[in-house]
Amino acid sequence: MLKTGRGAEAPPFLVMDVIAAANATALSLPPGAPGVLRMEVGQPSTGAPRGAAEAAVRALQAGAPMGYTEAFGLRSLRERIARHSGEKYGTAVAAERVAVTVGASGAFPLAFLAAFDPGDRVAMAAPYYPPYANILTALGMVPQQLPCDATTRFQPTIAMLEALDPRPDGLIVASPCNPAGTMLSPEELAAIARWCHEHGVRLISDEIYHGLSYGMPESTAAAFSPSAVVVNSFSKYFSMTGWRIGWLVLPEDLVRPVECLAQNMFISAPHVSQVAAEAAFDCTAELEANKAAYRRNRDALLAGLPAAGLDRLAEADGAFYLWADVSHLTNDSVDFAARMLAEAGIAATPGVDFDPARGRRFMRFSYCGAEAAMAEAPERLRRWLRR
Amino acid sequence: MLKTGRGAEAPPFLVMDVIAAANATALSLPPGAPGVLRMEVGQPSTGAPRGAAEAAVRALQAGAPMGYTEAFGLRSLRERIARHSGEKYGTAVAAERVAVTVGASGAFPLAFLAAFDPGDRVAMAAPYYPPYANILTALGMVPQQLPCDATTRFQPTIAMLEALDPRPDGLIVASPCNPAGTMLSPEELAAIARWCHEHGVRLISDEIYHGLSYGMPESTAAAFSPSAVVVNSFSKYFSMTGWRIGWLVLPEDLVRPVECLAQNMFISAPHVSQVAAEAAFDCTAELEANKAAYRRNRDALLAGLPAAGLDRLAEADGAFYLWADVSHLTNDSVDFAARMLAEAGIAATPGVDFDPARGRRFMRFSYCGAEAAMAEAPERLRRWLRR
Repeated sequence: MLKTGRGAEAPPFLVMDVIAAANATALSLPPGAPGVLRMEVGQPSTGAPRGAAEAAVRALQAGAPMGYTEAFGLRSLRERIARHSGEKYGTAVAAERVAVTVGASGAFPLAFLAAFDPGDRVAMAAPYYPPYANILTALGMVPQQLPCDATTRFQPTIAMLEALDPRPDGLIVASPCNPAGTMLSPEELAAIARWCHEHGVRLISDEIYHGLSYGMPESTAAAFSPSAVVVNSFSKYFSMTGWRIGWLVLPEDLVRPVECLAQNMFISAPHVSQVAAEAAFDCTAELEANKAAYRRNRDALLAGLPAAGLDRLAEADGAFYLWADVSHLTNDSVDFAARMLAEAGIAATPGVDFDPARGRRFMRFSYCGAEAAMAEAPERLRRWLRR
Repeated sequence: MLKTGRGAEAPPFLVMDVIAAANATALSLPPGAPGVLRMEVGQPSTGAPRGAAEAAVRALQAGAPMGYTEAFGLRSLRERIARHSGEKYGTAVAAERVAVTVGASGAFPLAFLAAFDPGDRVAMAAPYYPPYANILTALGMVPQQLPCDATTRFQPTIAMLEALDPRPDGLIVASPCNPAGTMLSPEELAAIARWCHEHGVRLISDEIYHGLSYGMPESTAAAFSPSAVVVNSFSKYFSMTGWRIGWLVLPEDLVRPVECLAQNMFISAPHVSQVAAEAAFDCTAELEANKAAYRRNRDALLAGLPAAGLDRLAEADGAFYLWADVSHLTNDSVDFAARMLAEAGIAATPGVDFDPARGRRFMRFSYCGAEAAMAEAPERLRRWLRR
């Protein structure tokens, strides 16, 4: 046997195994049986907005060669993203600071490698999006969890950061966050961004769920800190998951380093996806209709789940997730999820992936799926939990 | 100033700067002036084959949602790649060992992280494809150059490997290789693959130029070693650079580790590109016509360049590059390239990117561009060099 690298020990991104189990269950059902309610997936059931897909079709039919773009993407797309940032947040961002990436997933290794060294400690709230920790670990960096709960709305605080000894080299925040759906207020994000900048802590602000908040105002770390790295994506609000297209807003000192890394590690993001993404900015009506459906799903669940027995839910400010404390029902969310799938036909994600220490007491329910399924879920859950 | 990681010191992939300079020169020319002959680009001037683009259009027009695929890609594409491998090389490969990746670029970090640790030494012939070394360095690994020249046709030998002390942890081979275009014979590749397996050296075989050889038979490392990692791509023979789609054939022990890394770092390759790539396997007539054009370009240059003064060319077995020793003309290929662009209107790549130690005496000429340009290049060069 040849040796393998320690990267070979990266844990899976478990939700993908849950999706496979839900697919298998759905396929095994007899004809006419009630289907599986899909609440495990973190991707919209809608595809790309029509105008985006049509732009891709037009370009392909015109015979566009779709070669490599520059490493940071099509100039027109970078400028469109910069304009979007200015319009949305009132914060002007130069197009030169915008890097188009292969999804947000492709953005993280670039940002981490440019900002951190092996051995560096990067803090994040727990629960967290599992690839943060898994990518850092694969790169030899050290994720540092800040255990959060409902008292801080599952978000980190400056007090938590001050208490870290030694001080971390970086901090990842996400607002709205996955899995809890909670947000930092603009004041909280501003304070954290300034604290990080003053204390030499590189802030990575994951803003991929921007566009999907249901009341709390959205703010960008780029407005508050000249050293923060902003990660964003076309996968969530823009509903373009499989197109693999995202972006970074980079601080000045990381622009050229990330460009060199991107030239080597990616060459460029997919060209046809860049064409589609640029058109997606003009698809507001369709995208807002998607969001309105998420809001109806959220309302249905927030109204129905407590009565069904799931009454310990994080404040769902944004994204499309509910993070449910199920400790009154189980001490093993993996088993709970398997039984709920087999017996109630509801697929959701056990919390262990998001919070190794406490995730056995939590479940993540995603509500970006079909409205009929979200409407039916509370009653199915109620019957199952009452047995 | 916040600290940056040592990944921030990754050098650029210089050819991209050369492309930018050629673009700028082309734009600055007065109307009617002879255009710039583009011999610097490593991508086909053709786009995806028609059948591939049409498959993408059909799927988009049918409203396919184009969500994430499984991390290793669409099952049907993985099976098609496995079948291709069986048909092309007579080596059956299970579809389970095939991982669809975000280009070959996206395949390298996955393979390196799964196989190697920071500090591990990975050998490669020099000259080499610059991102090999740049990605390894960004990941904390140590590229180790085996200086090669025309006496071994710019390819490594077992004698070179035996001479390394300490023994490296890995070896990258490429056949046909970039920039030299030379190949290992099947016997040479088999011997190297077996030596690596027996000596605990992980072999990474870059086979992305397969399909583009002009006489020498192509062979795959997967036929000779159960521990080798094979990297391949739809960017070269299949002419789909900007679609960002490639694949790995993995040894059994790296299948699950690479799957976990891919789930975290990529989620999946672009869905629409996977659909197009699968259709590209059925576009043989168009792809063979592209190849016939490269062959004509190669013939024109091999006939014309020596008379023009470039007579020290590596044996161009495959790919679409000529590696020219220009030491009788300059000792500074960067300056030579700049003057050739400005004065002769020919863009080509100085060798320094491919071989830091000796690249100032070499130039890389790419012949995947327009046939008219390749036909004109020798005469322009002759006139320029005669001045």
